[in-house]
Amino acid sequence: MTIRDQAEAAREASLVLARATRAAKDAGLEAMADAVAKAEVEVLEANERDLANGAAAHMSSALLDRLRLTPHRVASLVDGLRSLAGLPDPVGDVVRGWTTPEGVQIRQVRVPFGVVGIIYEARPNVTADAAGICLKSGNAALLRGSSSAAESNAAIVVALRRGLDQADLPADAVQLIEGPRELTAELMAARGLVDVLIPRGGAGLIEAVVRDSQVPVIETGVGNCHLFVDASADVALAIDILLNAKVQRPSVCNSVETLLVHSDIADAFLPQALRALAEAGVTVHGSEAVSAYGRVVGVPVVDATDDDFAAEYLSLDIAAATVDSLGDALAHIRRFSTGHSETIVTGSQASAVSFSNEVDAAAVLVNASSRFVDGGEFGFGAEIGISTQKLHARGPMGLPEMTSTKYVLTGAGQTRR
Amino acid sequence: MTIRDQAEAAREASLVLARATRAAKDAGLEAMADAVAKAEVEVLEANERDLANGAAAHMSSALLDRLRLTPHRVASLVDGLRSLAGLPDPVGDVVRGWTTPEGVQIRQVRVPFGVVGIIYEARPNVTADAAGICLKSGNAALLRGSSSAAESNAAIVVALRRGLDQADLPADAVQLIEGPRELTAELMAARGLVDVLIPRGGAGLIEAVVRDSQVPVIETGVGNCHLFVDASADVALAIDILLNAKVQRPSVCNSVETLLVHSDIADAFLPQALRALAEAGVTVHGSEAVSAYGRVVGVPVVDATDDDFAAEYLSLDIAAATVDSLGDALAHIRRFSTGHSETIVTGSQASAVSFSNEVDAAAVLVNASSRFVDGGEFGFGAEIGISTQKLHARGPMGLPEMTSTKYVLTGAGQTRR
Repeated sequence: MTIRDQAEAAREASLVLARATRAAKDAGLEAMADAVAKAEVEVLEANERDLANGAAAHMSSALLDRLRLTPHRVASLVDGLRSLAGLPDPVGDVVRGWTTPEGVQIRQVRVPFGVVGIIYEARPNVTADAAGICLKSGNAALLRGSSSAAESNAAIVVALRRGLDQADLPADAVQLIEGPRELTAELMAARGLVDVLIPRGGAGLIEAVVRDSQVPVIETGVGNCHLFVDASADVALAIDILLNAKVQRPSVCNSVETLLVHSDIADAFLPQALRALAEAGVTVHGSEAVSAYGRVVGVPVVDATDDDFAAEYLSLDIAAATVDSLGDALAHIRRFSTGHSETIVTGSQASAVSFSNEVDAAAVLVNASSRFVDGGEFGFGAEIGISTQKLHARGPMGLPEMTSTKYVLTGAGQTRR
Repeated sequence: MTIRDQAEAAREASLVLARATRAAKDAGLEAMADAVAKAEVEVLEANERDLANGAAAHMSSALLDRLRLTPHRVASLVDGLRSLAGLPDPVGDVVRGWTTPEGVQIRQVRVPFGVVGIIYEARPNVTADAAGICLKSGNAALLRGSSSAAESNAAIVVALRRGLDQADLPADAVQLIEGPRELTAELMAARGLVDVLIPRGGAGLIEAVVRDSQVPVIETGVGNCHLFVDASADVALAIDILLNAKVQRPSVCNSVETLLVHSDIADAFLPQALRALAEAGVTVHGSEAVSAYGRVVGVPVVDATDDDFAAEYLSLDIAAATVDSLGDALAHIRRFSTGHSETIVTGSQASAVSFSNEVDAAAVLVNASSRFVDGGEFGFGAEIGISTQKLHARGPMGLPEMTSTKYVLTGAGQTRR
């Protein structure tokens, strides 16, 4: 099968999905969940083969962990499909409507994109998750996982397609793209056949898809997130937020990677903050001023370079610098931000408003942890990723963000003058 | 100046625009209008030079007409800028807002894109129009017009920038990209410097930008629009709509290019329709069945090929065929549609619903002329184009479609568990 064949089969399936009722799609999700649950043994065996191949290829233990499925992880993947069935269906929602002076009724209605391509890395749970979100939003899914998870993904997709078939939905609504690397390039060239491409993974993958794709892309997830502690910040509150945003789950895109401290509060804040970070096992990569505070309190600080301020560590590391004003903090953020989530801790209403207005990012936070920038925390129930682009969707993407709209105009013979 | 220099100057200007109040932007629009009105003589003289160059280069009379400015056209361009000042400002609109269970307040707020590139063809009025729409929506504009209108565009931009300057807004909010063809390629490669590119012009231009741009593109305007006359249509109403949609302004993207007639109504409809089209000066490119009706009523019908059914004529030509069912009409539209505006004339509620649901286009019309698919008719007041893509905006794009959003989260020290 070529990409064209697969995309055309997906298009046919998408026509059925676009007309499917919520009840039919929810039954499909339940059937997919049942089928994956029944195939647990096959899925785990396939995963063992991927893990063995990965170990033979000297894959890092972090990557092997991402690749690993367990009975618990399979169960949570099954639960994820079932919980999608409980969410409202965005398709058919009337976004707005009005009547023209001539009496033509206009409604703007949510419709599926059609065919969505997802390009992703090691985690095989993304296979079921993305397929479920696409199905619920009425889209056919072309899934391009990584070769390291090929066996696991294939076993999951076989089960998902069996579920669709049992629910009388077209199995081609979920397809895995299997084969050599060139197929990824073909997928990115399939403009007109594929409506949207969504890369899910690390910065390198996303950058490559954004650069090379002729299919419209929704860019997700790279987060070099800043936390700015303003002169008027409550020190205890700032330390709580800093620790939560850095330590609670350092491997995700909404964790904080750079700390900026107003020099007027550095004496009060930095000694405590550096000690708290050290206790939490965080390595600080600091500017000279930060290093000086480190020496005072006996916390080692690594010298920071511009690379540190540009880094998305995704680890227990943080870059840190002092700034002389809110304006300097904004300039630093403008230079290094990836436009994901930027936080200010402040007691000043004026600073809060300036920061909110002037930072150009998917999310701006005032006195709250950036870890809240997440589809689950937003109450979306499902999340395909966090968009860091400005077109279509920006920030956490739930089911409505997986749709387009069309205008339906209804008249009684009106013509234009 | 390189594209990078221009884009960086535009970025600086965009930061000022993003913070500018509606009052400041409206004053800017009025000042731009005043400045263009004052520069009428210079603008018309520059246009004369473009027209002379065009005539010397044997430009077609249709193109020369598009290129031509008159005192009336300059006045309408000035009026266009003033009328933008009267429209609501989309920036700062709260699209939605809610509070999380932890008490974090979330607001989704409209913000400008930042820097918008517009690539367009001969009409110099687009220069002022696009600059005005960008300014009102808080975006800096990089304008890349065609070389044939270089002198006119330069004169208009000089006036627009003088107006901005007089209104204490940064002149670099409106810049013309002047120079060789390679600059267009550079503009399309300026990912990260330019937030969105919008091509305005013919199918060739749009296709080239969509294919080559690494900057996100909003695809506008190619319309191979169909009109399907269902078996149960009111014949007189169908003929009214057909004539309006084909003849009222054939050169625009929302005019009808293909007529599909249910064979059950062909005897009642086609003889009258062919006579009416012939009287209106329309050349019909018909299938064999349509040609047969033409012979009966003595109206010449040109044999249609697949190229005719794929054509966006933008002239007094129409392709025509009979179909045996609504399903066949849908299949024909699926094959040839450019996803702009598709119309059914029907007396059947079931047909109206099927057609509305199953046609995949920016707009679907039931018993109304496709000429209503227009920002002005929609009541948007201003229109940058009609998007035929599924991401971000689909259909007529007004001022809100020229914005992105950001989430602002406000807390009192909340951290995530």
